[in-house]
Amino acid sequence: MERTIGLLGGGQLGQMLCEAANPLGIKVVILDAEKSPAKQVNAKNDHIDGSFVDAEKIRELARQVDILTVEIEHVDTVVLEEIAEYGVEVARPDGKKVVKRVEVQPSWKTIRTIQDKFLQKDHLTKNGVQTAVSKAVQSTAEDLQAFGKEMGYPFMLKARKDAYDGRGNYPVKSASDIPGALKALKDRGLYAEKWANFKMELAVMVVKTEDSTSTDGSATVAYPAVETIHEDSICKLVYAPARGVSTKVQREAQELARKAVGSLWGKGVFGVELFLMPDGELMLNEIAPRPHNSGHYTIEACPTFSQYKSQLLSILGLMPSFPDSRIPSMFPATIMLNILGGASKSAHNEIMKHAIAMPRAALHMYGKESKPARKIGHITVVADSMYSGEALMQPLISMTDAMRAERKGLSKPSPVSQPSSPAGRPLVAVTMGSDSDLNVLKPGLALLETLKIPYKVTITSAHRTPMRMHEFATNAVSEGFKVIIAAAGGAAHLPGMIASATPLPVIGVPVKGSTLDGMDSLLSIVQMPRGVPVATVAINNSINAALLAARILGTSDPIIQAQLVKYAKDMEVEVVGKAERLEEVGFKEY
Amino acid sequence: MERTIGLLGGGQLGQMLCEAANPLGIKVVILDAEKSPAKQVNAKNDHIDGSFVDAEKIRELARQVDILTVEIEHVDTVVLEEIAEYGVEVARPDGKKVVKRVEVQPSWKTIRTIQDKFLQKDHLTKNGVQTAVSKAVQSTAEDLQAFGKEMGYPFMLKARKDAYDGRGNYPVKSASDIPGALKALKDRGLYAEKWANFKMELAVMVVKTEDSTSTDGSATVAYPAVETIHEDSICKLVYAPARGVSTKVQREAQELARKAVGSLWGKGVFGVELFLMPDGELMLNEIAPRPHNSGHYTIEACPTFSQYKSQLLSILGLMPSFPDSRIPSMFPATIMLNILGGASKSAHNEIMKHAIAMPRAALHMYGKESKPARKIGHITVVADSMYSGEALMQPLISMTDAMRAERKGLSKPSPVSQPSSPAGRPLVAVTMGSDSDLNVLKPGLALLETLKIPYKVTITSAHRTPMRMHEFATNAVSEGFKVIIAAAGGAAHLPGMIASATPLPVIGVPVKGSTLDGMDSLLSIVQMPRGVPVATVAINNSINAALLAARILGTSDPIIQAQLVKYAKDMEVEVVGKAERLEEVGFKEY
Repeated sequence: MERTIGLLGGGQLGQMLCEAANPLGIKVVILDAEKSPAKQVNAKNDHIDGSFVDAEKIRELARQVDILTVEIEHVDTVVLEEIAEYGVEVARPDGKKVVKRVEVQPSWKTIRTIQDKFLQKDHLTKNGVQTAVSKAVQSTAEDLQAFGKEMGYPFMLKARKDAYDGRGNYPVKSASDIPGALKALKDRGLYAEKWANFKMELAVMVVKTEDSTSTDGSATVAYPAVETIHEDSICKLVYAPARGVSTKVQREAQELARKAVGSLWGKGVFGVELFLMPDGELMLNEIAPRPHNSGHYTIEACPTFSQYKSQLLSILGLMPSFPDSRIPSMFPATIMLNILGGASKSAHNEIMKHAIAMPRAALHMYGKESKPARKIGHITVVADSMYSGEALMQPLISMTDAMRAERKGLSKPSPVSQPSSPAGRPLVAVTMGSDSDLNVLKPGLALLETLKIPYKVTITSAHRTPMRMHEFATNAVSEGFKVIIAAAGGAAHLPGMIASATPLPVIGVPVKGSTLDGMDSLLSIVQMPRGVPVATVAINNSINAALLAARILGTSDPIIQAQLVKYAKDMEVEVVGKAERLEEVGFKEY
Repeated sequence: MERTIGLLGGGQLGQMLCEAANPLGIKVVILDAEKSPAKQVNAKNDHIDGSFVDAEKIRELARQVDILTVEIEHVDTVVLEEIAEYGVEVARPDGKKVVKRVEVQPSWKTIRTIQDKFLQKDHLTKNGVQTAVSKAVQSTAEDLQAFGKEMGYPFMLKARKDAYDGRGNYPVKSASDIPGALKALKDRGLYAEKWANFKMELAVMVVKTEDSTSTDGSATVAYPAVETIHEDSICKLVYAPARGVSTKVQREAQELARKAVGSLWGKGVFGVELFLMPDGELMLNEIAPRPHNSGHYTIEACPTFSQYKSQLLSILGLMPSFPDSRIPSMFPATIMLNILGGASKSAHNEIMKHAIAMPRAALHMYGKESKPARKIGHITVVADSMYSGEALMQPLISMTDAMRAERKGLSKPSPVSQPSSPAGRPLVAVTMGSDSDLNVLKPGLALLETLKIPYKVTITSAHRTPMRMHEFATNAVSEGFKVIIAAAGGAAHLPGMIASATPLPVIGVPVKGSTLDGMDSLLSIVQMPRGVPVATVAINNSINAALLAARILGTSDPIIQAQLVKYAKDMEVEVVGKAERLEEVGFKEY
């Protein structure tokens, strides 16, 4: 590629950006301290040693490149504005000085707006993006008391600038916390924010592909909405996709994040943090104008289009379009765990050794000196289901928990047992025409639990709730279901009607009624017209419906398929055992 | 990781090795020319500038590291033997010289054996690995004529050493070619090889995890068998997995490759090239004791365990075990295309621009100066099926074909049209109790073709060929089938019996016989006991069986699911059209 990128900051984000840029033939020149992580993986160019907040060094970088970008938002936007608006002076070979044009991406306006978190919130609110209610406040007890009175306690007192990983935030639980809060955040511009009692923290990486702003998120593309878990105010885990979140909320989160990013200036990748509230509403928390910790998982989950590649291509103006403006993950489940420095410099050796030898894990060490609680690496696990991903990740989480306990002088955490109930989004929807069918379904539901297959059970009557049934069937794919089990009796129309409104495989369980021995149900379910199949099992045999659902899921999930092989083996052992006993004791005693 | 690796050679293989080593915290020190590709992505260490065939430079490298390895087999094995057996002299801080032990992986014995292709073949033959018949020959017309007389024409005359990418090979089509062959390969040790009229070239990456040798491939792990396409004697394309190759041959190729690598000394990753002969037999062609072009695809296809990671972990003794000694690809289909330098230095710009913006493609440029036909990069495409992968790759192949034509001064190749029929392995097995059931199945088979779902059709009678049926069912998973459709009539035991011997979903089609209107078949199929489900469809309704199979495949293949949505839509349009006509012309005219 012809154009060279200048990068302010050479930490791990810059490092992973260079790891993406190298094979693409994209040149990146870095401004940061000598031997910073990004420079360690990029010996193609002459980098600049110095601080990314030093205006003269930034100008020196600009002279060598065509586009400036950042891996951190705490930079000097005055000099970025100067460079973007007026260019930078360079000496020609003949000694004459000329002005060279250099792009700044994303725009200095975006970086300046985002740097000041209160300005950021104000900008978003004006652009119709819902955020937590906040207000600029003076560093006085009166101002804070007034806020507390109006918005209630607890609330958050936050520094407007230079805040990250929880530094610069102070929770004010009651009026008596105010003096402590003012002391902790003295000499800084402040704002107060109404407490957001969220159910889950989500994050969406968004790529902005055009310089112009929009009010509807056009010219933006979103990665999946992920779930972030924080500990000690630092990101600990990322679950992609967010666990137990409906496809509707998934899409709404992506749309809100795209709308927010669309309102900003310039191109690039943005990390958007959101709160999912208990009522299902979404609220934007904050935006980072750069690759983000919550997007590390894309290196493996989108092996041909990570957040780093998106950053490079968007600022170069080379970003392709994606169907539906979404960059999909290529795996059903991906989990990322941060490695923070432990009590000693070698405290992370054990987790490195464990992770490096896991077939499904990718270890990323940043080449940084280990300091307590410093982000020094991360591990990404890819899996066929969130359930198996969680099982793979659990030992690693336990190791980081032990490192944290040692670091903080806490007693060792007790080893966490494997999750005992299925996590993640339900894969099988089980429905019935009437609650009187539930008894027939119970053995099948119990078997799904034994096989650890997440399911959702409901009632949708073809004749009594036709609209509800139709909605259920048409939304089944987008809800993330893979198979539907439907039980019904008599003129049993439910399985066939559902099959007519979804491309998913539908398994029908004929329920035996008070007359005709279930033959009415069986024939109503099995004798579907050409074009709309129902996979019919024996009358009242919900066990077989559950097993069939497992066999279907097993076609793309080897773990489930292995469980089925084991199930058949166990069944064989049981029958052989009975045969042996019968042969031993004879039929009279048996 | 504590131990440092010294790498002889810093080309693209070394570069990708470093790209894998950096995030794992593994130190690699490189011996090669200044600014070689590997050094461009590794600024963590002080590398050595010089030639990897220079004995003193190799000793200098050995002094700095704990393990020596290679990215190329054309190295000085005498010095490697010396270092491995006697160590290398290093000066202590007090000036005293001591001997330091350094491992060489894989063993110098392996590198020496492989370097000389005739020695390599001889070694493999002695270890029971089938290769093409070959014989060491003198550089005389008499010797070659004798070989031609004995083995027939054409045959291959090959240089024993320093041969790669076709250089050092000369096809001898008849006795009259002999003088030319001797001239082309003068002053080199030679051997002649019987012509292998293979059907397909396969390659398997194998990881050797123990120092000791074996005769059965134990302590080795294999990646999938891939198909390689060569042009001008240089690898052009790699299809993973190999197209249209049965699971049986897949496994045999992996086993043969593992057996061959198991017979060699030391640890590391090996590229094994094989010939698949027209009769289905496999023959080993040659082995490379290092990462290999045919394994580049693993960077994306195994995003947590590429061939480069395997090389690092195996030589460090950290390789984990894998179920069944296989490292699976995480995608149904991956295709790799090499980029060779074109007629001009910028001839590859167009393909780079195209590939960089493809959502499903990963571009790897090596940072090498472009020269005609030099390997300067590659592109990997990942896809949900080989069919869609081929469609994605086709425009890129056309671009490389045009580059080749320009480079060779040929007329531009005509654009190749998209493949029109589904490629790849059958996903649906369709079977029946008797050929009299075929008429009932035909509409379903036709629909599978319309939906472009690859299937295989056969006959397996539960009562007349019970063993054959059982074998079919037990092998179905390993054959790569995802769904089975079984049709039967009367006492229709076939679907249930198959279901009892496989964890795959089995769809039963009751065939209507001459009595009882098919009710006998229906009840025999649907009323399975608990534990063994059969997805039963309506009597004689193979259309619904095919659609159900498609719905099942659609749970993990979004392309198939989208086709089903379209199918339902078309069906609706058809019925609505009929309704309109009925309303228009009235029931009497209709």
